[in-house]
Amino acid sequence: MAKGPPVVQNSLTMQEVWDIYRENLEEVESQIRRNLDSDVPLITQISDHILDGGGKRIRPLLLILCARVCGYVHKNDLILGSLIEFIHAATLLHDDVLDEADLRRGQQTARRIWGNHASILMGDYLYSKAMCQIVAFQNHEINDVLSDACRKMAEGEILQLCANDQPRLTESDYLRIVEYKTGALVAAACKVGAIIGGASPYQQAALYHFGLHLGIAFQLADDRLDYTASGSRLGKTLGQDFLQGMVTLPLLHLLQSCSYEERLNILRQIKTRALGEGDLYHIIGLMDHHGSLQYTMARSQEYIGAATLNLEPFEDSTAKRALTVVADYMVTRDR
Amino acid sequence: MAKGPPVVQNSLTMQEVWDIYRENLEEVESQIRRNLDSDVPLITQISDHILDGGGKRIRPLLLILCARVCGYVHKNDLILGSLIEFIHAATLLHDDVLDEADLRRGQQTARRIWGNHASILMGDYLYSKAMCQIVAFQNHEINDVLSDACRKMAEGEILQLCANDQPRLTESDYLRIVEYKTGALVAAACKVGAIIGGASPYQQAALYHFGLHLGIAFQLADDRLDYTASGSRLGKTLGQDFLQGMVTLPLLHLLQSCSYEERLNILRQIKTRALGEGDLYHIIGLMDHHGSLQYTMARSQEYIGAATLNLEPFEDSTAKRALTVVADYMVTRDR
Repeated sequence: MAKGPPVVQNSLTMQEVWDIYRENLEEVESQIRRNLDSDVPLITQISDHILDGGGKRIRPLLLILCARVCGYVHKNDLILGSLIEFIHAATLLHDDVLDEADLRRGQQTARRIWGNHASILMGDYLYSKAMCQIVAFQNHEINDVLSDACRKMAEGEILQLCANDQPRLTESDYLRIVEYKTGALVAAACKVGAIIGGASPYQQAALYHFGLHLGIAFQLADDRLDYTASGSRLGKTLGQDFLQGMVTLPLLHLLQSCSYEERLNILRQIKTRALGEGDLYHIIGLMDHHGSLQYTMARSQEYIGAATLNLEPFEDSTAKRALTVVADYMVTRDR
Repeated sequence: MAKGPPVVQNSLTMQEVWDIYRENLEEVESQIRRNLDSDVPLITQISDHILDGGGKRIRPLLLILCARVCGYVHKNDLILGSLIEFIHAATLLHDDVLDEADLRRGQQTARRIWGNHASILMGDYLYSKAMCQIVAFQNHEINDVLSDACRKMAEGEILQLCANDQPRLTESDYLRIVEYKTGALVAAACKVGAIIGGASPYQQAALYHFGLHLGIAFQLADDRLDYTASGSRLGKTLGQDFLQGMVTLPLLHLLQSCSYEERLNILRQIKTRALGEGDLYHIIGLMDHHGSLQYTMARSQEYIGAATLNLEPFEDSTAKRALTVVADYMVTRDR
């Protein structure tokens, strides 16, 4: 297991962060493999597919870094990191069914290969398997934070589902959805790191809020990418959210900024689900004109700023510097 | 809270069991209501629907009875009973999506009213909400048994999905599926009762196995009802399992007992999913001829026998007698 270099450099790149923690992340991979061991071939196939699918293991990395910021040097962060990734994979399996997605990270989705039924059940399986191994740590704080994150994720998805039928939702309603569906698990990963690192309640709360704001920033950046990234760059196709009538921040901003006629027109299109590629490019043009994508990026950057403020109470260390690099990477990737 | 009568009667009817534990079960209902409290209207609506849908609260009742067999007199059994019911409701929501079911207990299913998306998410929500409240008890044994039951249920459903494509599965393969998908949660309910009742590891194991065998017996009885119950009697339509190509014990027995030509014919029908009502009545006729439904009932009764053997180490009490009555009720209901 790499201990991380004791000498703190002035600044790090994301590549250097990957290099420094490579050995740890490889151990997370081994843990994931070990956890997947099942005598049911379909379970092994689908979990291999979803967990081999090129995920960057950002949540395990954050957990490891938060543990190390608190001075943790043992190995439980790697096992817990792998379990967070299980929960994350479970949500992806269900998300792809809900979004009827055929592509994720440039690969066919599990539901495309094995069908919706298998994907729903494998989501249930990965989640419950993760919970089994989490409770085996016999740490009540960890149980609380992770079960609470799972509840919030489910609640966030339900709020999102309700929001799709009412595009008049406010920005603060939307941010609550994002906090629940994306922020909660990132926050939980950071807090679990703090817990096993023996952090004080104050430090635990600081790292929780670091993760929460980071998760929100990440989701907003992702919302923006839906209107800018091409299939080859992000591994999914342009405008998926919009074409499914999913209201995210760029569209919310546009609805608040455009003319009355434009707004009526967009709302009607969303309501009737009569959305084609032509509409998408028209919407992107309007977003350009009204600065909706710049606004989304600015909000995302604000959340990164709010996130990193929570790191101030911690002493300077490689892990702390790596956290700010990862934070920046999460919202600037793939542009 | 009813304490249950101190005088043990010679024999009880199921109606008397309901009467004796009515107050306790009403408290379980109140707990369910309290747990459902959410400021998201859709969550309240769907949970009300699924949890008001006429379920008999058999699992909470078993938990209460097992706790009392071990001498437990406090109130945690009622709260934990309500949480087991949450988990059960979560599985029903996902099951109905997987089975494309329109009716459950004579009512429209949630997926029929609110759609598959809402049902999948509400299943995730109820399950994770239950886990939040379970871990709040801070009892590692309870965490272990309930998270393990959830994992087994998901694994059982995946095994069932795989089995649907290979109707040559053996009876013992099938019984493993049933043990996981239905036995595990009933067993867990009984063991949780034993744990809070302060039972010895030996007694805990006895009540776990009581529940496990009971759950298997219940599922086999249910498999049989699929070929005998009419819509109005069981609240679901005849032959649902068969029409979906789901292989259960009556069909497995038939495949092992019928002629070579009949077997080829049935296997072809299942494989091509070319199943109509005419085929169903033909199959039921064959099952009659080969005694497949009687065989399934006999196997179910055997499991009840095996279940009740596990009660022997416990002293005579109203709760113990009630357990045998409930066991009998679970496999003889609705005939």
